[in-house]
Amino acid sequence: MSPEAGNPALSAWRDGAAKRAILDFVTRVTTVGHPDFVRPFDRIAVFDNDGTLWVEQPLPVQACFVLDRIQALAPQHPEWRDRQPFKAVLEGDVGGIMAIGMDGLTEMVMATHAGMSTEAFAALVRDWIATSRHPRFNRAYTDLVYQPMLELLALLRANNFKTFIVSGGGIEFMRTFSDTVYGIPPEQVIGSSIVTRYVLQDGEPVLLREAELHFFNDKEGKPVAINTYIGRRPIAAFGNSDGDFAMLEWVTSGPGARFGLILHHDDAEREFAYDRDAGLARLARGLDEAPLRGWIVARIKTDWELVFPS
Amino acid sequence: MSPEAGNPALSAWRDGAAKRAILDFVTRVTTVGHPDFVRPFDRIAVFDNDGTLWVEQPLPVQACFVLDRIQALAPQHPEWRDRQPFKAVLEGDVGGIMAIGMDGLTEMVMATHAGMSTEAFAALVRDWIATSRHPRFNRAYTDLVYQPMLELLALLRANNFKTFIVSGGGIEFMRTFSDTVYGIPPEQVIGSSIVTRYVLQDGEPVLLREAELHFFNDKEGKPVAINTYIGRRPIAAFGNSDGDFAMLEWVTSGPGARFGLILHHDDAEREFAYDRDAGLARLARGLDEAPLRGWIVARIKTDWELVFPS
Repeated sequence: MSPEAGNPALSAWRDGAAKRAILDFVTRVTTVGHPDFVRPFDRIAVFDNDGTLWVEQPLPVQACFVLDRIQALAPQHPEWRDRQPFKAVLEGDVGGIMAIGMDGLTEMVMATHAGMSTEAFAALVRDWIATSRHPRFNRAYTDLVYQPMLELLALLRANNFKTFIVSGGGIEFMRTFSDTVYGIPPEQVIGSSIVTRYVLQDGEPVLLREAELHFFNDKEGKPVAINTYIGRRPIAAFGNSDGDFAMLEWVTSGPGARFGLILHHDDAEREFAYDRDAGLARLARGLDEAPLRGWIVARIKTDWELVFPS
Repeated sequence: MSPEAGNPALSAWRDGAAKRAILDFVTRVTTVGHPDFVRPFDRIAVFDNDGTLWVEQPLPVQACFVLDRIQALAPQHPEWRDRQPFKAVLEGDVGGIMAIGMDGLTEMVMATHAGMSTEAFAALVRDWIATSRHPRFNRAYTDLVYQPMLELLALLRANNFKTFIVSGGGIEFMRTFSDTVYGIPPEQVIGSSIVTRYVLQDGEPVLLREAELHFFNDKEGKPVAINTYIGRRPIAAFGNSDGDFAMLEWVTSGPGARFGLILHHDDAEREFAYDRDAGLARLARGLDEAPLRGWIVARIKTDWELVFPS
């Protein structure tokens, strides 16, 4: 019995070990009487976002949003002209931008993400996403999602999986498009967050976004956040960098049938090729340990017939 | 058209203003073409737990768990015999127990909720819930849920609402029974939480519960947590104390059809009667402002035919 029968097909996946492993796992956990059967209640699958569900090169999409917002806000901040990291951004100083460390990044995020209501922020993101284009592909970022992963999400949901995003990206950034783009509602999106505060403005309650980190959802933070938001251990996890290592480790260490998959970006022609030297998107330990841990490594070049929706 | 047609009936609710308001709201938001129609995606309803879905007198259920755990752990903590607040608990000193302030309460929660894995904690709670009895009704706490509210949850879900718990209680405490008792899966339970940390023990990953508060989900914290977990504003909210005031305010201030309901415990014979002097369960501002804000006040004595499942 194939889980594809009457189900969304994985037609953007080429026949190969990765596709076979996915179909085999779905068959085992959904076949009543199979020793690996998992009741629908426990069919939870978690997906990283940047580089797993959509493009993250040459810069993560949310970083592009930050840079554009700094340009847009610059007239109200004349002091930025002489102050790093803003100066480098405003002058288009690529070397300076690349040299921005974690502190500078945090400062830029707070300057562009805080000091407004949750509703005002969501409106800014929606406007930006609707009008921005990827520098290489000249397409909207929401068109640069991976067709094979959309099919995988659909296949899992057709088999009564509940699908969640567990990303280092901003939770309120992703929630503006997760439902329309991935079919994942806001309450199934987990990400990094800043502090919000409930206040009355002219008698109307609003949630104000404050310039203070609430939770950074990366590395060992991912299993912690999965527990906080979902409250039980998923049975399948999908990622593409060592920021996802702990999440895959947590998920695949549970009892019963488990599935871990790492997406390896090795196709510079159709998308991008990066791994061990990719900075925040670095993938090294995952590649080294995947075989020992029984994790599947899917390679864009060989496993994907199609990268983006056509 | 009645939303009860072919739906779970509200048979434990007596005919009256509260029941009529519920049915009218559900009819309006689910009738295509009605000006108050709400698409299923946005049909989110949030419920307080203690005193809204189950009994919270003479002590909140989780407080009973804390007291029992202190007794059970006492042999390993000889120092507790001479130290408050533990001394009062171990001696059954009711006056001393009643005098325990917020700091003492926090200390007792940490002593009984932290220092173990999430899985070990859940097992403790499950064992305790299965074997404990309410001092007055001599029934399991999970039998002392409110039948009218179970029917309301079922009615809403039959009308494509997604139902969430938003409680000051411990998130991992409630998640052990929310699905079997309320039909609410763990990922739709929001509560107070302590810090957890991802660690390897003998090579096996575990989430360790630490003696540090992560989030206290009460009062203005409730709308904040709703945004953190759900990512949009619900259209209906149900509570019973002023700890739910901000949640009801947030929910009913949104555009379009909104519904707020406060449960008033006024039936000492069948359950308990308390409001303005009820300490942590105090209900005063809610009673005073409900009429101005269009919130429904449901009274156990007059609105409920049945309190607990028979």
